[in-house]
Amino acid sequence: MNLFKIALIGTGNLAWHLAKAFEDTPHKIVKIWGRNPQKVQCFTQTFNIKPQTSLNFQKEAVDIILLAVTDSALGEIIPQILLNEKQILAHTSGSTSIEIFQNYPKVVNYGVFYPLQTFSKNCILRFHEVPICIEANSVWVENQLFSLAEALSLKVYKITSQQRLYIHLAAVFANNFVNHLLGIAQEILNKENIPFELLSPLIQETIRKALESENIHTIQTGPARRNDSNTLEKHLQLLQNFPNLQHIYRVISQSIMHKAPEIN
Amino acid sequence: MNLFKIALIGTGNLAWHLAKAFEDTPHKIVKIWGRNPQKVQCFTQTFNIKPQTSLNFQKEAVDIILLAVTDSALGEIIPQILLNEKQILAHTSGSTSIEIFQNYPKVVNYGVFYPLQTFSKNCILRFHEVPICIEANSVWVENQLFSLAEALSLKVYKITSQQRLYIHLAAVFANNFVNHLLGIAQEILNKENIPFELLSPLIQETIRKALESENIHTIQTGPARRNDSNTLEKHLQLLQNFPNLQHIYRVISQSIMHKAPEIN
Repeated sequence: MNLFKIALIGTGNLAWHLAKAFEDTPHKIVKIWGRNPQKVQCFTQTFNIKPQTSLNFQKEAVDIILLAVTDSALGEIIPQILLNEKQILAHTSGSTSIEIFQNYPKVVNYGVFYPLQTFSKNCILRFHEVPICIEANSVWVENQLFSLAEALSLKVYKITSQQRLYIHLAAVFANNFVNHLLGIAQEILNKENIPFELLSPLIQETIRKALESENIHTIQTGPARRNDSNTLEKHLQLLQNFPNLQHIYRVISQSIMHKAPEIN
Repeated sequence: MNLFKIALIGTGNLAWHLAKAFEDTPHKIVKIWGRNPQKVQCFTQTFNIKPQTSLNFQKEAVDIILLAVTDSALGEIIPQILLNEKQILAHTSGSTSIEIFQNYPKVVNYGVFYPLQTFSKNCILRFHEVPICIEANSVWVENQLFSLAEALSLKVYKITSQQRLYIHLAAVFANNFVNHLLGIAQEILNKENIPFELLSPLIQETIRKALESENIHTIQTGPARRNDSNTLEKHLQLLQNFPNLQHIYRVISQSIMHKAPEIN
């Protein structure tokens, strides 16, 4: 088994979780590069990682360079990176194609190492349950990235850039949008001085059921599903001072109603 | 402690779960009434409950009558119910005011016994974690319904009809709408032959974080939150053959963007 020496580019939440997770593997993050020196220092103090001062890795004893920066910074940082012919460069972005590396002929070995999870600081995560999506420009790189990913997670998948785009899109619905709706539910209860914890068991049961369902639309319940126009009207009235919430209520209810004939 | 004899009106999922849950309490469901004789028979065979043939309970040895029928059936069934002056009638509906009983002077003692959960058949539920919302037309009825509810659940709340309306509205966002969005995420992945289980850890982490957050909007992530118009545009293009999904994507993203200034 290869023991990889890794360099990390970026000092955000994902970088932090990767640094933490690799501590429990035989592989080793040896270098970290970041634009913010204070954040770099935080990493070098917390983990046994040395700062990397330039983006030229050609003479560094590093096998894999992981780009854990925001999607929009990739285009700016990649052209500055210098690698030798054995080193692998991989980004960790859900919405960026592997083709971003094609414009740089000096990057010989490249791929994608995308952990599908929401990462926030100060919260320990069981990385072995986080799916990692791998894509590579050669079988050799793919094998290297797979063995790196398998040291962290039990769920490693070969996923094309096209599939990854759709995964990211689905994740926006399932994570970002769900979070927003839960935020709205919390707002509604707060305004009436009702503790949000009242909804916890309902939310947990909703999720449990959905994750077990082959076709989630078929287990849909509620006034829109039942075409219960009395309740729909009552709810829209309760929201009359919140046109934005009324709009969301209408749009999703209509979507549920449109779906109904397909699944009846 | 009072040991209540209960009659159940209705044979749906909630009635089934109540019958199951009361088995483990000192109280006893003794009678069941339903419009569908086959369903009534299913209850009398599964549980030790006798069928009730009329809605006149005046001479029955029953303390509390629980209405577990659909919201829309309440207005039809309540006028047919005959009670004596000691019996209590309670409905279990989230969106129906306690005032529905006011039109029937023969119903002396009444209230609401609303378990806040999504109930599906064939799935065992830990009822002691289900919040039960109580409302009553007198202190005596309130005490009776509280002691009944506390036999089932550790979380019993006194909730007014007005509050219950808002709870039900919030539950539509947190349960019905969240379910619909998860259904959409599953659809998107199915179309690309990607297993939905890939999203499970992300969804579970999203929910865990939200349930722990004092203000869920502040933990919002994703392209809309970052105002990342490149990704938003890319996602809308992926959805170009699904105008309904495009519309939902736009509406919720805009709502997230509108929320951003408040929480920055």
